Amino acid sequence: MIFSVQIKIMPLKDLLDPQGKAVLGGLHNLGLTSVSAVRVGKNVTMEIEADSEEGACRIATEAAQKLLANQVMEMFEVSIL
Amino acid sequence: MIFSVQIKIMPLKDLLDPQGKAVLGGLHNLGLTSVSAVRVGKNVTMEIEADSEEGACRIATEAAQKLLANQVMEMFEVSIL
Repeated sequence: MIFSVQIKIMPLKDLLDPQGKAVLGGLHNLGLTSVSAVRVGKNVTMEIEADSEEGACRIATEAAQKLLANQVMEMFEVSIL
Repeated sequence: MIFSVQIKIMPLKDLLDPQGKAVLGGLHNLGLTSVSAVRVGKNVTMEIEADSEEGACRIATEAAQKLLANQVMEMFEVSIL
């Protein structure tokens, strides 16, 4: 079976996020002053051939740990779409 | 009230995604050959001060249209967390 899997990768809460800070500055300059605490991360979707949802999640987690996420600075969440 | 809002920005389905293709190659090299159709997008979270969920969604949509997403090449989805 083929599962559509989404991996959300965000900078860890305790770390500075310079890209988010830049976006926040840009939004304020555009007049959107009610926005705060912007954080920018990645979103990766993929299709995985596996026997079960658990199998697909396991493969996606391996992909995130080995290639996609830098676990020193980022956290990730795997979900089936 | 303050709402946590997530904006998911992904390359349009019909367009090539070279970053996704590179990630797919990397995953295959790591032995994860059951993966296909990788697409890489952005995920932006922010806090928005607004009167209602609709108000927060409207501000987030404006942020995405004006700054975050390039609607020629990307689609976006706003959701309240």
